Amino acid sequence: MVTHIGLVGLGKMGANMRTRLRAGGIEVTGFDQNPEVSDVASLAELVAALPPGQRFVWVMVPSGPVTRGVVTELAGLLTDGDVVIEGGNSHFSDDSEHAAHLAPLGIGYLDVGVSGGVWGLENGYGLMVGGDAALVEAAMPVFDALRPEGPREEGFVHAGAVGAGHYAKMVHNGIEYGLMQAYAEGYELLEAKDIVTDVPGTLKAWTRGTVVRSWLLDLLVKALEEDPELGEISDWVEDSGEGRWTVDEAIDSAVPLPVISAALFARFASRQGASPAMKAVAALRQQFGGHAVKPAGGS
Amino acid sequence: MVTHIGLVGLGKMGANMRTRLRAGGIEVTGFDQNPEVSDVASLAELVAALPPGQRFVWVMVPSGPVTRGVVTELAGLLTDGDVVIEGGNSHFSDDSEHAAHLAPLGIGYLDVGVSGGVWGLENGYGLMVGGDAALVEAAMPVFDALRPEGPREEGFVHAGAVGAGHYAKMVHNGIEYGLMQAYAEGYELLEAKDIVTDVPGTLKAWTRGTVVRSWLLDLLVKALEEDPELGEISDWVEDSGEGRWTVDEAIDSAVPLPVISAALFARFASRQGASPAMKAVAALRQQFGGHAVKPAGGS
Amino acid sequence: MVTHIGLVGLGKMGANMRTRLRAGGIEVTGFDQNPEVSDVASLAELVAALPPGQRFVWVMVPSGPVTRGVVTELAGLLTDGDVVIEGGNSHFSDDSEHAAHLAPLGIGYLDVGVSGGVWGLENGYGLMVGGDAALVEAAMPVFDALRPEGPREEGFVHAGAVGAGHYAKMVHNGIEYGLMQAYAEGYELLEAKDIVTDVPGTLKAWTRGTVVRSWLLDLLVKALEEDPELGEISDWVEDSGEGRWTVDEAIDSAVPLPVISAALFARFASRQGASPAMKAVAALRQQFGGHAVKPAGGS
Amino acid sequence: MVTHIGLVGLGKMGANMRTRLRAGGIEVTGFDQNPEVSDVASLAELVAALPPGQRFVWVMVPSGPVTRGVVTELAGLLTDGDVVIEGGNSHFSDDSEHAAHLAPLGIGYLDVGVSGGVWGLENGYGLMVGGDAALVEAAMPVFDALRPEGPREEGFVHAGAVGAGHYAKMVHNGIEYGLMQAYAEGYELLEAKDIVTDVPGTLKAWTRGTVVRSWLLDLLVKALEEDPELGEISDWVEDSGEGRWTVDEAIDSAVPLPVISAALFARFASRQGASPAMKAVAALRQQFGGHAVKPAGGS
Repeated sequence: MVTHIGLVGLGKMGANMRTRLRAGGIEVTGFDQNPEVSDVASLAELVAALPPGQRFVWVMVPSGPVTRGVVTELAGLLTDGDVVIEGGNSHFSDDSEHAAHLAPLGIGYLDVGVSGGVWGLENGYGLMVGGDAALVEAAMPVFDALRPEGPREEGFVHAGAVGAGHYAKMVHNGIEYGLMQAYAEGYELLEAKDIVTDVPGTLKAWTRGTVVRSWLLDLLVKALEEDPELGEISDWVEDSGEGRWTVDEAIDSAVPLPVISAALFARFASRQGASPAMKAVAALRQQFGGHAVKPAGGS
Repeated sequence: MVTHIGLVGLGKMGANMRTRLRAGGIEVTGFDQNPEVSDVASLAELVAALPPGQRFVWVMVPSGPVTRGVVTELAGLLTDGDVVIEGGNSHFSDDSEHAAHLAPLGIGYLDVGVSGGVWGLENGYGLMVGGDAALVEAAMPVFDALRPEGPREEGFVHAGAVGAGHYAKMVHNGIEYGLMQAYAEGYELLEAKDIVTDVPGTLKAWTRGTVVRSWLLDLLVKALEEDPELGEISDWVEDSGEGRWTVDEAIDSAVPLPVISAALFARFASRQGASPAMKAVAALRQQFGGHAVKPAGGS
Repeated sequence: MVTHIGLVGLGKMGANMRTRLRAGGIEVTGFDQNPEVSDVASLAELVAALPPGQRFVWVMVPSGPVTRGVVTELAGLLTDGDVVIEGGNSHFSDDSEHAAHLAPLGIGYLDVGVSGGVWGLENGYGLMVGGDAALVEAAMPVFDALRPEGPREEGFVHAGAVGAGHYAKMVHNGIEYGLMQAYAEGYELLEAKDIVTDVPGTLKAWTRGTVVRSWLLDLLVKALEEDPELGEISDWVEDSGEGRWTVDEAIDSAVPLPVISAALFARFASRQGASPAMKAVAALRQQFGGHAVKPAGGS
Repeated sequence: MVTHIGLVGLGKMGANMRTRLRAGGIEVTGFDQNPEVSDVASLAELVAALPPGQRFVWVMVPSGPVTRGVVTELAGLLTDGDVVIEGGNSHFSDDSEHAAHLAPLGIGYLDVGVSGGVWGLENGYGLMVGGDAALVEAAMPVFDALRPEGPREEGFVHAGAVGAGHYAKMVHNGIEYGLMQAYAEGYELLEAKDIVTDVPGTLKAWTRGTVVRSWLLDLLVKALEEDPELGEISDWVEDSGEGRWTVDEAIDSAVPLPVISAALFARFASRQGASPAMKAVAALRQQFGGHAVKPAGGS
């Protein structure tokens, strides 16, 4: 069983995970481009620092080319029986490519979707893993150190074959979009109603006993305690990839996804200045009905 | 058969309809609060001006209290056998109230949904009528004068019982919301793609032979000919009641209405400054992920 | 401070609430049409059983005419200074009518939205209250007995004026629709993907540490533990009123509600046999493209 | 200017286009795998049959591998200065690959989105073209023969660079999804209302003078004349690729597409037996509320 792993990528997430792993009794040798946080000077040094026998290297770098580059470099450093664990935000279709690249060298591959954000260091990370069962079993001490306290199955799953971990994480994030938008719409409705005079208090009152209680609700309550009118924040909302991938995947699978797609589109709309589509609708109304329009630049 | 009617309400729509009716051989006595456009000084004078026998008075005033007031006043002026035709934008549920108010007096009631906007004067008006078949038949010369040239059934329908005319018009407008939004979304997608260099021309090329050709498309082409980038118009879009009623009715009838409701909500969103909902989503993202947010007032 | 209340309506919810109130030290005299569960034989007996001084009667009967009837009857039995607490699933607009009916008699009125379902007996009920602050304060022992353990403000709120309690509960339920649909869409996407071989396990792994953890997720995990393929359940989903009211209210307030409305419409669609709308789309495709359609009755 | 072209693919669309081209004075040599409809025995024979000078070959075969195969084969048969016109339903991203494959050989490439379905033979085809302006000009006699009567710009556009023709056609089809769903939702609402007794007549009355008049409406009226209750047709609706691509593209471009995506998802849902998502919602309701569910297999 693994007691010492390599960890590539010591950004906010990676650094926190190193801390939690060490606190959980796993020895970690970390590598990052940034020498100030790195334990070693190179990937080669990292691999060399791992104990003999089956070696595990956890990759936690930006998805896409950077991850691909690290996996490729590791392919040249690791040997038969070693294992790469890809824990970044990769699209699940990258995983089969990574696995296929490593398999001829006898190097195993696991993909892990990691949830928990900045709170994971303290609360533990929700982990969804894809890949070979024997490898999952061998890496279990690492997963146990990272996951939340409590029964293993409440914070960890071996979800399926290679790619299943990132797929599950993608769906998790898609759901997250829908949940956030549902709370947000309810919040706006409360704010719009004059008879409701304590909106932050109303949301706080939902945090125990109600059907809608959740961690996201707790966070919204916290945000409103810090800024009761959300006056310090704009309505500009970024999206991070997984939401888009979720809708893409729904389209590929012919699965109706009205709520999650609506949540995604609301984010797109939030980042637009003037909406070309709504300008077109305004223009149409003017054409057929002589309806007044607001000139551009009006308020 | 009717050859002379009273027409109450000579705003933009009413005045145009008077013109078209007269051009179609129907004598019209019009009344409006505004003496400059009115043919008579009062509703009583209007009724007195109509020839003996079955009298028809077409009401074309703002829906709600104003229409209710006119119908009530007419109830005191008309007598057994006369007919009120309500052609404004009333909610269909008002029609049964009006009819019930007039029925004990022997006064008939027809409700008419009128489509065509400012173009109706020239092209004719699409007419949807609710009420008793015999009354519809008696009023047919009026409908024939108002409706477009061509076969009667392509611009006129006796849709059903009292209320059916306004119901059909409401649904017509709900559909209109969905159609406009569909074109608008497509327009935005074209605008977003660099390889498409002639967006107005592309829409114009759709006006013959394609599946999406329509009068609304013609109008969008016209709008783009007048203002190819829609630079003179803001993205602020009003809604006029029927769209809301359509979704309300869908809810009452448990009919799924994803497209029409999405079109309505897009208009609501177009009129918001900062969206409270999206501020809440931004606040949530900041809470769980430490994601950067834009401060309010940022661009 | 109140130590003994009347409780009208001892159905599943009412009976559970009586039990929890008594366990919390509040004396309860309950009345129900069903003599087997009722403590007294009539509303008059119920009122007579309450101690002198300010009397509180909690109404927990079906919303609409039944609630209206009980409130009306109580108006004749209570006197100046007494308080009616309406805890059913009433529309918030009923509350102002109830309050206006009681106010001339000096009878106070509070409306309470109650969340928690069958779990409330054990976990406590989330409470959202509308009405006068002094009355809320006077009734606090009742609220404290019903609400969950923990800080009061995490399971109770004085949300605002009369109607605010039911309004907040309505929004709570609207959010609930959106949350449920978001999880359901994610569940379906997982089920549709062959590389994901442990869907119930994946959802269970989300119950700790992840962003999407919630009580509803716990319940979905429980449902899947009882029936891993949901093979015993149909896809027919009822809706209970509050979801519709939420969308109605959004329309009245011009608040965009894409996610909650989509969740509502998905329920409508789930209860349809053949969808008339989709038949129309199929007919259109056949018309313009000669596309094959499935004959009715085909599979 | 071209007077004789090669046409590869004589299926329903291709054969109709050959007929229209010949009627328009363009000589056509057609090739198809099916010898019964083919004018020549091979692509090589087709190319050999074309007159000297700049040769044009229009490709009208299934998108994807088949189109790719034909383009590749043509690359070996055509020479410097010839032109391939790709008129099938290809994804616009295929066009840049085709063009890049042909460019080194000096073979030009145009992509054409063709709308009109089975009606195009008689009415003409709406054409959207991408590629080099000089090539577009050279091919104009072909486009003029295919497009509808009337001003060229109302049925033809040079939309932009390579790919723009198929992109415009993709968006056209996405809009089509939205339009169809809007009419279909309105149709369902009319059908659901008892006071509306003549639904087919109501739609027919919208075909002149109204804001919603369109060719699709005409087709829906025609479908209802053939089958007034749509009793012969199921609610199972296929989707053909362009709708999915449109939503994919919206996601890539961060363009909100609530209406078109809702129309696409409605089609997905129409083809499901039991919806896994709605089973999950039903299961959740049962868990928290003890709400009755329908057992699977119930009606």
